Amino acid sequence: MRQAGRSLPEYRALRKEGSILDAIKKPDIAAEITLQPIRRYGVDAAILFSDIVVPVHAVGFGIDIEPGVGPVTENPFRTAKDLERLRDLDPIADTSYVIETIKICVDELRIPLIGFAGGPFTIASYLIEGGPSRTYKETKKLMFDNPKLWGQLMDRLTAICTSSLTSQIQAGASAIQLFDSWVGALSPDQYIRFVFPWVEKMFEEIGKTGVPKIHFGVATGELLQLMSDVGADVVGIDWRVPLDQARSRVGGGKALQGNLDPGILSAPWTAIEAEVLKVLELNDGHPGHIFNLGHGVTPDVNPDVLERIVHVVHQYRVGQ
Amino acid sequence: MRQAGRSLPEYRALRKEGSILDAIKKPDIAAEITLQPIRRYGVDAAILFSDIVVPVHAVGFGIDIEPGVGPVTENPFRTAKDLERLRDLDPIADTSYVIETIKICVDELRIPLIGFAGGPFTIASYLIEGGPSRTYKETKKLMFDNPKLWGQLMDRLTAICTSSLTSQIQAGASAIQLFDSWVGALSPDQYIRFVFPWVEKMFEEIGKTGVPKIHFGVATGELLQLMSDVGADVVGIDWRVPLDQARSRVGGGKALQGNLDPGILSAPWTAIEAEVLKVLELNDGHPGHIFNLGHGVTPDVNPDVLERIVHVVHQYRVGQ
Repeated sequence: MRQAGRSLPEYRALRKEGSILDAIKKPDIAAEITLQPIRRYGVDAAILFSDIVVPVHAVGFGIDIEPGVGPVTENPFRTAKDLERLRDLDPIADTSYVIETIKICVDELRIPLIGFAGGPFTIASYLIEGGPSRTYKETKKLMFDNPKLWGQLMDRLTAICTSSLTSQIQAGASAIQLFDSWVGALSPDQYIRFVFPWVEKMFEEIGKTGVPKIHFGVATGELLQLMSDVGADVVGIDWRVPLDQARSRVGGGKALQGNLDPGILSAPWTAIEAEVLKVLELNDGHPGHIFNLGHGVTPDVNPDVLERIVHVVHQYRVGQ
Repeated sequence: MRQAGRSLPEYRALRKEGSILDAIKKPDIAAEITLQPIRRYGVDAAILFSDIVVPVHAVGFGIDIEPGVGPVTENPFRTAKDLERLRDLDPIADTSYVIETIKICVDELRIPLIGFAGGPFTIASYLIEGGPSRTYKETKKLMFDNPKLWGQLMDRLTAICTSSLTSQIQAGASAIQLFDSWVGALSPDQYIRFVFPWVEKMFEEIGKTGVPKIHFGVATGELLQLMSDVGADVVGIDWRVPLDQARSRVGGGKALQGNLDPGILSAPWTAIEAEVLKVLELNDGHPGHIFNLGHGVTPDVNPDVLERIVHVVHQYRVGQ
């Protein structure tokens, strides 16, 4: 469960009030935050504590994370000149702290560690919009207005993400997850034209390492088949698409991840349990299923609830 | 095109800086704003200038519209006591300005006027969350935590919306549109349990008037069939679902409305034109199609672009 640590008191005690990017840059802190939810919940894999903007921040684009807002940049990406702010990532020189964090985690863990990166559309949208957006209209304007520049931007972001993911795998990550979180803002035709070729290239490159590739976004019901065809091994599903429906779109030979609605985690336990069981029942014993939420955990969630969910899932698995 | 008037200079000149609710309460102003985009664009129907919170504002719930934010309430709906703030709507006494506005418009117009209301889930979410939300977690918490209170809240909102819509039809509206804009935050199972029965009741009641009922929300790809089955005559589609795909979900005998991506209206004209033609081509000459955007027009859109879109659609129709 991504961001499962955010609601833990031990996380807040460790993070305090500082910038999340500062915490990510301290391997001992970042590793401890990665491990906290594992100790608490006994889940079956860990996901690196990091952020999708880490690589573009590291190459000096000029992007920060504003608490309560998200990624923000004072000088949004607008012209070919802005490409100069997106040089190649040298993972050793630029993000040694990520590599160090992974090594500490892998030494401690007896379960797989999942590395990750932000998908190129989602990262591009932050660079172009200057912050979170509801309409993505500057992003779409650039796509259609200057497809050449869009292609160059996607080339840069694909190269940066590929380097980052490769270095995470070399450091010991057993799988990777590409969070193209906001790509569901595109129609299938827009996805095919403006995103697919770059993610395909990235997954081809990452595929050479042999590690499984998980691919996730929200409101992607109409894109699931494309997000599978682009080269993912596992497709993450938000809570909108029932799991059986998702499986028919994604096609055979692929696994699914999801898809408990994170919006119900403040509901009474009996309601949550019923929703957990519904996900498991819709999966109908299919071996290709990673139980997960359909999106990240919000900071207000009671950790006991997450613990009970893990227990129900594990008991169900034993019962099968 | 809902909110098509928002980007017009003549609209800004008339609205000035005041509250939108104040403008809605002045029939001469509200009628003029309703008519402005008709004169400018020559579209085939007008939609009343109003807001989805007008009825709950009118019965004194205590909700306002904050510019740049949206509907906000200082005292969110939390307990059964809050039901007292949702008495029945007396359309004549409480919203005479809406009725007056409709009468002025209908006198002026040679095309149909569409009345509207907010869907009960969407209105409930504003009352419960206190403002716009990304997660709807307070809303979902209430649904599951206290289904009885949720049902009572939906009963109240359904009664209020039904009264409002009925009075709009009596005043001369030729069709109505129910904007359950944010209902796509629910899974199909959640929709069936927590929304369907109330919208079905509302549509049954409105159906007695014989006017067509349009039903719209965003990110509703998985709900389209339900939003049709609940009693809509026309189902509005956002830009995520290709029109042919939407038609197969909605089923025969129903019309579709949509689904040009409003996020591309700042792109170059050739790109916009291609997207307009793609919508028309995917419709493939089906008589049950109302060309529209997949969501509202944002205030920054160049009015000339909307004018050209209307022209392309009309030419295409002539060409068929």
